[in-house]
Amino acid sequence: MAQDEEELRALRGHNPPHAATIIHTDQQAISAKGDSMSGSGTSVPWTRRVLHFCSPTRRLPILSWIRRYDGEDSTSDLIAGITLGLTMIPQSIAYATIAGLPTQYGLYAALMGSLVYVFVGTVKEVSIGPTSLMSLLTLQYTAGRPPGYVVVLAFASGLVELAMGAFRLGFLVCFISAPVTSAFTSATALIIIGVQLRNLLGIPRPGSGTAGGGGFFGTVLNVLSRLNEATLGDTALGVSCIALLVALQQLPRFTSARRTSRLHRTLWYVSLARNALVVLGSAFLAYRLAASSGDGSVPFHLSGNVEPGLPSFQWPMRGVTVGNTTVPFLEVTAQLGSGLLLVPLVAVLANVAIAKAFASEIAVDATQELLALGLCNVVGSCFRAMPTTGAFTRSAVSHASGVRTPLSGLYSALLTLLALGVLTPYFYYIPRATLAAVLIAAVTSMVDLGIVRRLPRPPRHSAVDVASWALCFTVCLLLGVELGLLCGMTVSLIEPLRHSLWPRADCTTVRDPSTGVRYRRIRPRNVPALLYPGVDRLRKIVLAEAHLQTAEVVGTSGEPALPLVLDCKRLVALDFSSVRALRELTQQVHRLGGTLYLRDVPSAWRSSLQLAETPYGLALP
Amino acid sequence: MAQDEEELRALRGHNPPHAATIIHTDQQAISAKGDSMSGSGTSVPWTRRVLHFCSPTRRLPILSWIRRYDGEDSTSDLIAGITLGLTMIPQSIAYATIAGLPTQYGLYAALMGSLVYVFVGTVKEVSIGPTSLMSLLTLQYTAGRPPGYVVVLAFASGLVELAMGAFRLGFLVCFISAPVTSAFTSATALIIIGVQLRNLLGIPRPGSGTAGGGGFFGTVLNVLSRLNEATLGDTALGVSCIALLVALQQLPRFTSARRTSRLHRTLWYVSLARNALVVLGSAFLAYRLAASSGDGSVPFHLSGNVEPGLPSFQWPMRGVTVGNTTVPFLEVTAQLGSGLLLVPLVAVLANVAIAKAFASEIAVDATQELLALGLCNVVGSCFRAMPTTGAFTRSAVSHASGVRTPLSGLYSALLTLLALGVLTPYFYYIPRATLAAVLIAAVTSMVDLGIVRRLPRPPRHSAVDVASWALCFTVCLLLGVELGLLCGMTVSLIEPLRHSLWPRADCTTVRDPSTGVRYRRIRPRNVPALLYPGVDRLRKIVLAEAHLQTAEVVGTSGEPALPLVLDCKRLVALDFSSVRALRELTQQVHRLGGTLYLRDVPSAWRSSLQLAETPYGLALP
Repeated sequence: MAQDEEELRALRGHNPPHAATIIHTDQQAISAKGDSMSGSGTSVPWTRRVLHFCSPTRRLPILSWIRRYDGEDSTSDLIAGITLGLTMIPQSIAYATIAGLPTQYGLYAALMGSLVYVFVGTVKEVSIGPTSLMSLLTLQYTAGRPPGYVVVLAFASGLVELAMGAFRLGFLVCFISAPVTSAFTSATALIIIGVQLRNLLGIPRPGSGTAGGGGFFGTVLNVLSRLNEATLGDTALGVSCIALLVALQQLPRFTSARRTSRLHRTLWYVSLARNALVVLGSAFLAYRLAASSGDGSVPFHLSGNVEPGLPSFQWPMRGVTVGNTTVPFLEVTAQLGSGLLLVPLVAVLANVAIAKAFASEIAVDATQELLALGLCNVVGSCFRAMPTTGAFTRSAVSHASGVRTPLSGLYSALLTLLALGVLTPYFYYIPRATLAAVLIAAVTSMVDLGIVRRLPRPPRHSAVDVASWALCFTVCLLLGVELGLLCGMTVSLIEPLRHSLWPRADCTTVRDPSTGVRYRRIRPRNVPALLYPGVDRLRKIVLAEAHLQTAEVVGTSGEPALPLVLDCKRLVALDFSSVRALRELTQQVHRLGGTLYLRDVPSAWRSSLQLAETPYGLALP
Repeated sequence: MAQDEEELRALRGHNPPHAATIIHTDQQAISAKGDSMSGSGTSVPWTRRVLHFCSPTRRLPILSWIRRYDGEDSTSDLIAGITLGLTMIPQSIAYATIAGLPTQYGLYAALMGSLVYVFVGTVKEVSIGPTSLMSLLTLQYTAGRPPGYVVVLAFASGLVELAMGAFRLGFLVCFISAPVTSAFTSATALIIIGVQLRNLLGIPRPGSGTAGGGGFFGTVLNVLSRLNEATLGDTALGVSCIALLVALQQLPRFTSARRTSRLHRTLWYVSLARNALVVLGSAFLAYRLAASSGDGSVPFHLSGNVEPGLPSFQWPMRGVTVGNTTVPFLEVTAQLGSGLLLVPLVAVLANVAIAKAFASEIAVDATQELLALGLCNVVGSCFRAMPTTGAFTRSAVSHASGVRTPLSGLYSALLTLLALGVLTPYFYYIPRATLAAVLIAAVTSMVDLGIVRRLPRPPRHSAVDVASWALCFTVCLLLGVELGLLCGMTVSLIEPLRHSLWPRADCTTVRDPSTGVRYRRIRPRNVPALLYPGVDRLRKIVLAEAHLQTAEVVGTSGEPALPLVLDCKRLVALDFSSVRALRELTQQVHRLGGTLYLRDVPSAWRSSLQLAETPYGLALP
């Protein structure tokens, strides 16, 4: 909220205008053009636009919240940050493996992503780092190539994301509707549960490329068919971890103490730290079991070795060194081809969909999110990171751990740094089943299938909300989340386009008060602009009216035909198609024996219409 | 026009309602829902909708114009039909060759397409038959397969087109704007001129697949680089044919006689028949030259042999017989794969873009055009025709020859039948350069680059018209017309979506007349519906206003904060996203210390908002 207020102040300009002048300015049009396309006729000079675009409070959101940062915030963030770090380290190792990379590339990406997002991020829950989606996409474009290609891909993706931010393409994000966000969230959560079920039950991994592919039902069926391979140790540990997590989550409710009491407060923190406690406890258990057994074996799967060593700076534009030869940067990008466009696009869509899912109460500043993601990738790739985006699972863990500000990312980053430096041997002992339990418990709350009941339905409402939800959810589960998101967005477009496509009009017989002449007024309603999709409908409406007036009225009752007046007062915009159609329409009505006047046509269009001025409006001479 | 009137009458129902009741019905909303999606809350029973959909005047447009058909119409149509036939026969042979088929498949397609369109077509210029676009697409899906596969492809495409018509997907056609239609038309005409230049100059064909591929500039550069291969005979014949065609076209202007005189009339008909005259004259010349020379050779290229024989009925669903085995219908369709969807889609887009280009003054009945195209393909495929769509070149020839009704197709069909039956040896003599001259002369008038000057431009207008024209034109010339059409349509969508995406609002301080209470009214303007793309902007506007009211006003001048009232009166639709955002917004304003009332919310949405009723509107309790 505080952040939002700050931005609003920035939106109004830094010097608040004098209150009295604002209050009495009637009909003052405020359009929140902060992030809108340029060149739509506003009179703000471009220098001020650039200054506003580059203003520190907009581009470094940390400045707006760090001044109010207090002790309570820091405790919450520390708990969330450590929990996040404990989840992030084993996850990053796993995702680097999926992409066919040495494990440290994943850890570098998580480290740099968390660190950079602290300064430029707007949504406190979002955790930037390696994700399963990015790993699979990376594998698709760099399989069989040296790791340097992955770094160049991350660098180029970051540049594309920065460019999208600079060109303010963030507005495209407005086309992800609430039902689509919800469907995407629920489907992603279900897919993660399906994938983690295998780890929870200790079923060995079948191959390297199945973590995100194959669809939800394929994953679940695969797990069910291999239930006999499940190990007792993993299953027991995983299920008891889930039970413990649920119990700890409900802990504050079971105390009858007052909300401000010390006991309640302690229980509250224990509840928030539940993920970290469970991970640390399980790791300690594994360590003791390994120490007590002779050969260091434990009855469940562990995370495995983490290679130690800190990341070092390496400029990605120097190209990729393979053996003795260096492939130049441009040649590498040429070989990556369409990946340079597809990877950033998917990253942006996923990141913003996640940001929207968590920051449901505040409007996501899409431009800033684009710039932040781009910066994370560009800076990360200078330290040999793989491509990153917002991670759904880790964001859910952050959320469940009560994160307060993006500063929690700093604690996760420090933990990762520590892990890379000295803690490496200890992270070996984190059991996989525990991590699966943490992830499953975190994302389960994100599955919201109840929205289907709350979505409005025909006959009183349009079916678009329901259709976009259902299509996005189904395609996400069956064919992949990136395709599902796209399908949902496409179907959602029907609703805003419907009104342009089917304009309606009120036809009224009106008597002119001054001259007493009666005429038939046709007034388009519910369309702000008469544009090409709807122009043929309006033509039919006018021609139907003209036909009635000229043929049937005269034929049956002998009354004289009334002139038609098309009232364009409420139309704020016309386009070339509609102007041409209006000119043709006056000629068509003329040929039917009637007259069509165009009244209150926006002055910018009068010359294009090539019609004469008359007292009733524009008409054929 | 007559057709259009007829349809309007049908639109109003067959019994014209009593005139007086119509005149005095004020605020009567007419929405031309004839072709609109069903289920949007209108009260017309579905039986009447089906009857209206199936009404003979709508589905057999011939019924509406055949009664008024007179002698003058028939003369014009006969001239246009024969000209069209003389163009169609050699073209169909060429296109069948491009698709890798025996020549008669192209002729069957032209014959059946022309014949069926007479009864079900709505645009008099459109000539359904084989086209270069369809030939290349067909080749892509059936290369190396027996001709039976092509027939199955045509049949299945026809069924898909019929289904699209039955589901009324014709409305999609409204999304082709006038600038896009113009760019598509100009680019297609230029491409045809580029391709035909080769025939005009007698340069031999390099391969079988280059008739439509390689882009416009590639084609022209190819011709220029091979100018030394041009033959004198072809060039001389081609250029003089073009000169003759231009002279004949200008003929009626050179007579000073009155427009009704016999001389003027004769010259007018000669001018209309110019294409047929030039083709027949050249063929006669070639025949005489061949007869006078010893070995039957002529100094220019001829159309070549046409295989004689009439088409016979063969049910396509019986499958394809290859040697001794029969591949079942379903297996053939499975092998054709995505072609079953792509071929009809491209056919529909091309057909409707052509119909729009020629029928610029009347609204194209897209549903009927879909059904007509589907029927042409289904019926055609029963007589072994290849896939068909509207042909741009032949439509231009029809238009230039003064076609009056679709009946001209009957004359072309009869001529084709005659050609297949008995005239085969004579069609051999039509010179290719003459056909190229006819096509070039016909399509040159379709190139309209002057539209760029007439298109409105920024800063007073939006740049979308210009951008969509330029993109469509460029992509058509460089990458292909189907891709160009798609790009243009996508860019055009910006304009209708812009208004949903950037809602504006008027903020006014209002005093309630009855209670005297002052409040701040926020009234969205220029949006018929508050939908998901624009909801974040409106939220910013309201929060900016709330912030001003609660923080700064109270701080600086000590005046009390005014309550905010969001006036939803003009909004005809909300969606799930906006309702959720409005509910959250009232809570956000409440947290800022203000109150937000929602006034005149459509009753259908009141329960979803979960807000309490107050005298000022809905608000938090």
